[in-house]
Amino acid sequence: MPPLHRTIPALRRLRLANTAFQQPAHLRLRPATAPLRCLHVTPRAQEQEKAESTTSASSADHAPQDAPDRAQSKIKYTSDSYPDLKRDSRFKKVSKEDVEHFKNLLGSEAAILDGVTKETGEEDFEQYNSDWMRKYRGQCRLVLKPETTEQVSGVLKYCNEQCLAVVPQGGNSGLVGGSVPVFDEIVINLSRMNKVRSFDDVSGVLVADSGVILQQADEYVGEHNHIFPLDLGAKGTCQIGANVATNAGGLRLLRYGSMHGNILGLECVLPDGTVMDDLSKLRKNNTGYDLKQLFIGGEGTIGIITAISILCPQRSSAVNVAYFGLQSYEKVMDAFKEAKKQLGEILSAFELMDAQSQQLYHQASGAKLPLEGEHPFYCLIETSGSNTEHDSEKLNAFLEHVMSEEIVADGVVAESETQLQSLWACREGISEAGQHWGGVYKYDLSLPLPELYSLVEDTRKMFEGNGLMHPEDEKFPVKDVVGYGHMGDSNLHLNVATRRYDKDVEKALEPWVYEWVSKRQGSISAEHGLGLAKKGFIGYSRSETMIKLMGKIKETFDPNGIMNPYKYI
Amino acid sequence: MPPLHRTIPALRRLRLANTAFQQPAHLRLRPATAPLRCLHVTPRAQEQEKAESTTSASSADHAPQDAPDRAQSKIKYTSDSYPDLKRDSRFKKVSKEDVEHFKNLLGSEAAILDGVTKETGEEDFEQYNSDWMRKYRGQCRLVLKPETTEQVSGVLKYCNEQCLAVVPQGGNSGLVGGSVPVFDEIVINLSRMNKVRSFDDVSGVLVADSGVILQQADEYVGEHNHIFPLDLGAKGTCQIGANVATNAGGLRLLRYGSMHGNILGLECVLPDGTVMDDLSKLRKNNTGYDLKQLFIGGEGTIGIITAISILCPQRSSAVNVAYFGLQSYEKVMDAFKEAKKQLGEILSAFELMDAQSQQLYHQASGAKLPLEGEHPFYCLIETSGSNTEHDSEKLNAFLEHVMSEEIVADGVVAESETQLQSLWACREGISEAGQHWGGVYKYDLSLPLPELYSLVEDTRKMFEGNGLMHPEDEKFPVKDVVGYGHMGDSNLHLNVATRRYDKDVEKALEPWVYEWVSKRQGSISAEHGLGLAKKGFIGYSRSETMIKLMGKIKETFDPNGIMNPYKYI
Repeated sequence: MPPLHRTIPALRRLRLANTAFQQPAHLRLRPATAPLRCLHVTPRAQEQEKAESTTSASSADHAPQDAPDRAQSKIKYTSDSYPDLKRDSRFKKVSKEDVEHFKNLLGSEAAILDGVTKETGEEDFEQYNSDWMRKYRGQCRLVLKPETTEQVSGVLKYCNEQCLAVVPQGGNSGLVGGSVPVFDEIVINLSRMNKVRSFDDVSGVLVADSGVILQQADEYVGEHNHIFPLDLGAKGTCQIGANVATNAGGLRLLRYGSMHGNILGLECVLPDGTVMDDLSKLRKNNTGYDLKQLFIGGEGTIGIITAISILCPQRSSAVNVAYFGLQSYEKVMDAFKEAKKQLGEILSAFELMDAQSQQLYHQASGAKLPLEGEHPFYCLIETSGSNTEHDSEKLNAFLEHVMSEEIVADGVVAESETQLQSLWACREGISEAGQHWGGVYKYDLSLPLPELYSLVEDTRKMFEGNGLMHPEDEKFPVKDVVGYGHMGDSNLHLNVATRRYDKDVEKALEPWVYEWVSKRQGSISAEHGLGLAKKGFIGYSRSETMIKLMGKIKETFDPNGIMNPYKYI
Repeated sequence: MPPLHRTIPALRRLRLANTAFQQPAHLRLRPATAPLRCLHVTPRAQEQEKAESTTSASSADHAPQDAPDRAQSKIKYTSDSYPDLKRDSRFKKVSKEDVEHFKNLLGSEAAILDGVTKETGEEDFEQYNSDWMRKYRGQCRLVLKPETTEQVSGVLKYCNEQCLAVVPQGGNSGLVGGSVPVFDEIVINLSRMNKVRSFDDVSGVLVADSGVILQQADEYVGEHNHIFPLDLGAKGTCQIGANVATNAGGLRLLRYGSMHGNILGLECVLPDGTVMDDLSKLRKNNTGYDLKQLFIGGEGTIGIITAISILCPQRSSAVNVAYFGLQSYEKVMDAFKEAKKQLGEILSAFELMDAQSQQLYHQASGAKLPLEGEHPFYCLIETSGSNTEHDSEKLNAFLEHVMSEEIVADGVVAESETQLQSLWACREGISEAGQHWGGVYKYDLSLPLPELYSLVEDTRKMFEGNGLMHPEDEKFPVKDVVGYGHMGDSNLHLNVATRRYDKDVEKALEPWVYEWVSKRQGSISAEHGLGLAKKGFIGYSRSETMIKLMGKIKETFDPNGIMNPYKYI
């Protein structure tokens, strides 16, 4: 059997757009003893997934605010959008001698994009200077693409000595402007460091260069019946080293946990060129402070990750998906509790969507929704296990229970690959749908589960109160407020769908949302990181004590401050 | 149904000693199509587990080298065993004024054990000055037992100002001398900080004081059908905060992963008394360096953990255990690979025991071994899942496969709770058995899985070559070399069973073992930490670069060096 890959969101949406919705097997409230229809789930075929590569833009949860304008205008320089941000005069400007040095060091034309000594057009630098959201744009004129750890070391050693600022860059699919320069920082792009170093199919430990594309890493271990313990919409472009540097969360976190648990070792180059070889393949190693943890989520501010060692779990051969409607958020919590209890070891996703989000999706995409009636809340459940029959039986028993107990009002289960894709599309199509009417203000927040949905309700109340929202009247800037996200990770996506960007809406939202989150000890950035976008807001999620300590860590590792300046803390 | 607790090793051994071995259902090589006997596993009853509390001394893998002498002599002062270690003269000696200050601060007689201003006998300090292995003994004359985070803060602030050295202490069940003083450091014992602060049975997040006993924490979440994601022989005495501070591994790591992934937040008091409140209940929080990770495994050298927030998984209602014999280490690796593949999500333990270890256990305990014939290797497999029938079916299919493919030569499965205990005893009784003939040199090592067992073979060859080993002849100091451990975590316990402690044996072993491990990028301390015992050997598992960086971290957090001095790095 070919390895089972999680299908990429872009493909899911495409399939929904091109095919009529295949109505899944309908479940109705029935006596607890009546047997449910046996589920049949076809493994998703490998060739389907290779049909189209995903770009970062298809990361459905995280589409940019200004995506609709994508092709229409030049992106503003970050230095213009942030006029208070000034270039740090300590940093040297790149000279011809510097370029010469790097040429000798890297020894290949392919390794350098040189706009300092050559007449290179600005457009050639566009993909390195701009983020995919077209929100940030730097002014870099030198891109270096080292191929080995030694080259990264040589580059950083020189930059540190010369006080040349640098930006480490992976697939450049970040959402907070962390991977593009602000001014003329040198971009160190890791894309040429793209080799798998080793894989041990007994322990499941993969060691690979940091520039390996996530999807390729997953396919590689997939051939050995393992799974890369991270899945993202941007998997077709993002790089595993940058995934670690940004502590990417994604779709598999509920089941496989975070990078802090799965990363066994890192090879990093420190700002002074020293190679920190901590590329351990061991699950247990209690010999001193676990320094690699600082690089996980360090966003390239204390060094460059050049290779990772990661524990890959066994791949599941059986995947089931169910979608259902519920009467209240309390019922959603009950359903989650029951899913944890009854599906336990096979539960791999528990996603939340409110009625507004599903309506928005329906209106924007024209797609038929899976359930006939309307419900205030919807959930999507996915199971992944080693035995199709066992998993189906568990899922049936669970559905039987939640329906007979009236926790769930109505539900469907996927009976084919197409249905499975369609159900996932209802969840993953929301983000793009929000932009259909003009723009969307997006927040990616962690909140204690019991209060998670209250923020959506309070935001809605706030806009009802201040007269900025109306579902149909075009005069009102806000069309709707929707909430959805990874229930299993306490991760809410709050989207405010607007007809146009509006200063009043912005003022009403910020810092109001951050204050709301802060009061509940939530996080203002669940999985996107700080970058440039949230540098100023860290105080809402971290105490002064912690921010001060973080500053000391930064100073300890990068005393000259050359690594990814103007960002993070 | 009562919550299912993992039975403590001491109890397992006790039950084996008191009852005849209940021979489990025997499996013989048979055609792949023949059905196996249906397994029946009784959930372990709650009352059995409460029958006897476990002390640290029952942590079977980690019994001390000098345990047989336990009651016979006074423990040597650490300062005598390590004559090169001198008291740091920067540290002030505790004065009457200091004691007065602490009395006012803590406000309770119960909070202070005072040998400075009072005539308190040395024996009253014994449990705080000595470790349970009776290997280390400090000379502390003041024990403080704060009850609140504020009190810990007050104590540390004063100590830092006065340059008084301190040792944070939990259940004092460590194995490397990390939790007892070396000279006259003040012991800060956390046992009075023992309250559960909150538990959310939807998210599974437990927040509790660091002094809560591990077993009590597990029982607490067990009442809500969850499991504490750590299990240790010492669970009856060790404290959860200290478990985090030492990054304890234990028996559940294969299934639930390490503390670095499970700990969601920490409350720590820094050496200057500042409270670092990072007691997050969130699974995702990407706002800056993950500082709490430094405290996980930091062994109390940069601050005191006063509370933890931890993600507790759903408790499994079904547990199965199988034990089998294999012809080679290659077959063991094959079996592990198949177990991962076929048991996937329900595999909760895969333990390795060599023939020598089982013989030693048999000879020392008199217990009958589960299999009739002899095999070079034995494995114990445990599954934990939510459905007994499904799990049994998976385990049967797995056993069927590995036996028909001749990966496994012979095997048994537990059909009752007693059998289950007996099978576990074969694994957990080894450590104590090794001490039966005099003493045992113990190493707790992480190694790449393919090379894990080679160390045992090489050690055996080494002793055969130098004429120090003989199985029967009393003239030879070494009786046998045995290997066993957590195969699933690549964690080998290498034990050298001796008739007497012998300088020649020691010289042959060290640094030979550490060099052997270092060459394979293994860890010289898989789960025990560094403490005082391994401070000098960190260079075998960490590079100079990393040790230097660790030094900077220590300096950043604890510039006066008052926290747990003379140890760690």
